[in-house]
Amino acid sequence: MLPLLLALAQIAAAPPSPADPIEADWRAIPDDELLVMTLRGDRRVVIRLAARYAPDHVANVRRLALAHWWDELSVYRVQENWVAQWGDRTEQKPLPAGVTDRPAAEFEIAGFAPAQRMGRPDSYATASGITADGWPVASDGQHAWLTHCYGMVGVARDALPSTGSGAELFTPIGQSARRLDRNYTVVGRIVAGMQWLSALPRSDAPMGMYAGKEEEWPIVTARLASDIPAAERPHYQYRAADNPRFAAAIARRAHPEPPTVGLGGASVCDVPLAVRKAP
Amino acid sequence: MLPLLLALAQIAAAPPSPADPIEADWRAIPDDELLVMTLRGDRRVVIRLAARYAPDHVANVRRLALAHWWDELSVYRVQENWVAQWGDRTEQKPLPAGVTDRPAAEFEIAGFAPAQRMGRPDSYATASGITADGWPVASDGQHAWLTHCYGMVGVARDALPSTGSGAELFTPIGQSARRLDRNYTVVGRIVAGMQWLSALPRSDAPMGMYAGKEEEWPIVTARLASDIPAAERPHYQYRAADNPRFAAAIARRAHPEPPTVGLGGASVCDVPLAVRKAP
Repeated sequence: MLPLLLALAQIAAAPPSPADPIEADWRAIPDDELLVMTLRGDRRVVIRLAARYAPDHVANVRRLALAHWWDELSVYRVQENWVAQWGDRTEQKPLPAGVTDRPAAEFEIAGFAPAQRMGRPDSYATASGITADGWPVASDGQHAWLTHCYGMVGVARDALPSTGSGAELFTPIGQSARRLDRNYTVVGRIVAGMQWLSALPRSDAPMGMYAGKEEEWPIVTARLASDIPAAERPHYQYRAADNPRFAAAIARRAHPEPPTVGLGGASVCDVPLAVRKAP
Repeated sequence: MLPLLLALAQIAAAPPSPADPIEADWRAIPDDELLVMTLRGDRRVVIRLAARYAPDHVANVRRLALAHWWDELSVYRVQENWVAQWGDRTEQKPLPAGVTDRPAAEFEIAGFAPAQRMGRPDSYATASGITADGWPVASDGQHAWLTHCYGMVGVARDALPSTGSGAELFTPIGQSARRLDRNYTVVGRIVAGMQWLSALPRSDAPMGMYAGKEEEWPIVTARLASDIPAAERPHYQYRAADNPRFAAAIARRAHPEPPTVGLGGASVCDVPLAVRKAP
């Protein structure tokens, strides 16, 4: 909220901080763990896939992308302070060969051993933190799960016991969708272009469903990076969390420098999970 | 995420729940505690003012509105997953008579005695809850404060010790601005029309500042409801929290009916704070 010129001067003058990453903290995201969705108007949304945490649903997502299944479908639901959702609103388009309609549930993940633990209990869990490879996780001591933070990508589904195939995807665009934790499968998070979904017009219709083709925002293509010609393929890196720089970044959130009043904690959804284009 | 027709059928068939408000739970918001801001395109944003919690800053906001100070100014900053901010980006427009440029800080509020306490510690506080009159609050045991949830309205300021006058206002449009708690004065919350701010195009410029007049979204008028002719004046009611129906609504968030898996808690920012037009 600082005046612009003052803030810019401070950014320019800032010395390196113990919370800044070093080069070794940046690790490559594999090409087959990046989904590049281009919306009308050359709006590119880049999704990192949670291949280690929801392998069966991510396998479906990969097959859907390799079959170019999302091309010419749309973002068809944008509900204020809730989610944007895309895919085939009719749920009539046949799924490509090899995509399982009802994969086993992956609402939870195996083990809870984050590289960084948040210092305070979470409103939705007894513990939370960030994995070494940069994913937000929470646990109740028995189960663990990826958290539905802003920009995470979940698998839409019918009523339980459906788990959804991964053809219909959504991302939280508001305060919190944490109450979806352990009830929906998380397959990724948006690492670039979130604004192309978060700033779409809201629909006042039930569940934020757009009225029809005129309101929908078309998907032009959705490709695995590994399926994009090498010369055009984007490469991204995530900031690894298993190092003291990351710990310092979390600590700075909880205990900022005076005169800013620190609150002694922060939500796992409020930890910056940095991603950059490979230099 | 349910299919639309199934979800609509469920809504239509839902019997009254212990979490539903009764008529007596709806209480009038005084006309001088409503700020009605109309943006270009007849986009109406309605703000409930936190007169009891930040009286000096709300007094300023009232004087600014009565002087029609915001008319022909703009929303000039929209930063992805952070805030939308409005007022006079030049900070050159003289403030009306009676508006104090540097009111005493109102970062904190007197006392912490919410009508409903959240069952779990909060990531940013040791306790949190909802006041009888429907505001989210948190406390560390010594201090208490209104929380910067999505849609709350805060007072932008220069570097401390400035508190801001109330002329420049912002609202969180993303995951969380809770780390602003106790560092910025909260003067209200948006009770209608949030989508006219949350869906504005993001700016990639530093701090999300729009490039200039072409990008800014104009404010046509901003009026206290009490300053609007009676025939056109909107009337709103809030849902009071000092009753067992509200407690049941919070409990339902934390402990939904199976097969939905409950998480045993919810964030104070995830409690529905209902407001409706007076019938």
